[in-house]
Amino acid sequence: MEAAARVIARRGVRGLRVEELAAEAGVSTALIYYHFKDRAGILRRTLEFINDRAAVYTTERDPDAAPLEPRQELERALLLELQDDEAVRENSIAWGELRASAIFEPHLREDLAKATLIWVQEIADLLGRVRPMATAAGLAVAAERLTGVVEGLSMRWLSGILPLTHARELVVDAIDAELERLGRP
Amino acid sequence: MEAAARVIARRGVRGLRVEELAAEAGVSTALIYYHFKDRAGILRRTLEFINDRAAVYTTERDPDAAPLEPRQELERALLLELQDDEAVRENSIAWGELRASAIFEPHLREDLAKATLIWVQEIADLLGRVRPMATAAGLAVAAERLTGVVEGLSMRWLSGILPLTHARELVVDAIDAELERLGRP
Repeated sequence: MEAAARVIARRGVRGLRVEELAAEAGVSTALIYYHFKDRAGILRRTLEFINDRAAVYTTERDPDAAPLEPRQELERALLLELQDDEAVRENSIAWGELRASAIFEPHLREDLAKATLIWVQEIADLLGRVRPMATAAGLAVAAERLTGVVEGLSMRWLSGILPLTHARELVVDAIDAELERLGRP
Repeated sequence: MEAAARVIARRGVRGLRVEELAAEAGVSTALIYYHFKDRAGILRRTLEFINDRAAVYTTERDPDAAPLEPRQELERALLLELQDDEAVRENSIAWGELRASAIFEPHLREDLAKATLIWVQEIADLLGRVRPMATAAGLAVAAERLTGVVEGLSMRWLSGILPLTHARELVVDAIDAELERLGRP
């Protein structure tokens, strides 16, 4: 799975060759087909893998550290997509390639939509912990906008046209704005 | 140029073959090389072309129509990226592919950064017409966030995981939020 994420990040979905994937993973192409059945199976499982890995790097914390306030946890969850770390970069690039492939090939759409929904829901929950009196609908749209802005700015950062620190500042500021809005009666 | 935008939207930058581009445009590959010199030249000129085309479809209006209020003009400028129109779709897909290519090949970065800056500046100007008392810095970050959210949601829409009407509602709501924020003393 690691090899698949790496190859997709490097070559895109359209450039994914099973031979290259097999070589990268150090196994035979027969084994790849045995495990994943076909190309669609490789893509589906890679999407699952990068989502699981993102869940780990967005929640991993020193178990002895003091618990975070909901507001800090929210910032952390959104900013972890924007950090200069090889796994984060590779994950975001592979995610972008898988999503772009869904423009022309519909089979990944359902899985992509589900993964996006889980992320939006997680952010809505954190927003709700900071603003317990906000409505569920208000939290949901705030979470959709915040994750949308993170995705948009993350693509700018990855392609080298927006400095990372500035992207992070814009996100922190967007969180302030949404919380302020949700806090108003 | 139209053929290049079409082929890049369809195959991605990595899948762009000069032979296919020549066939699509109905000319010889020699003519393509004569005009663009090399692959980098094709990409640079295609980026220019899609930016020019976006400028046209975002500003084109019936000359006899009543002038728009600044607020309406702002909504229009941001929402025109989110419309079910073949040229808009193709432009956005090609833009996404060109931007993704800059992750690994740096030569387009400067042109991408410039195009993004022009768009952000245009939105900042429109925001400033609605909120003439806002600071330039405040207008700039609001414009960066708004264009960021449009880009993020546009990718979700294009890949079929977010309905267009909902994406548009989220953007209108984001405009409200930014204007409200800029209007406060």
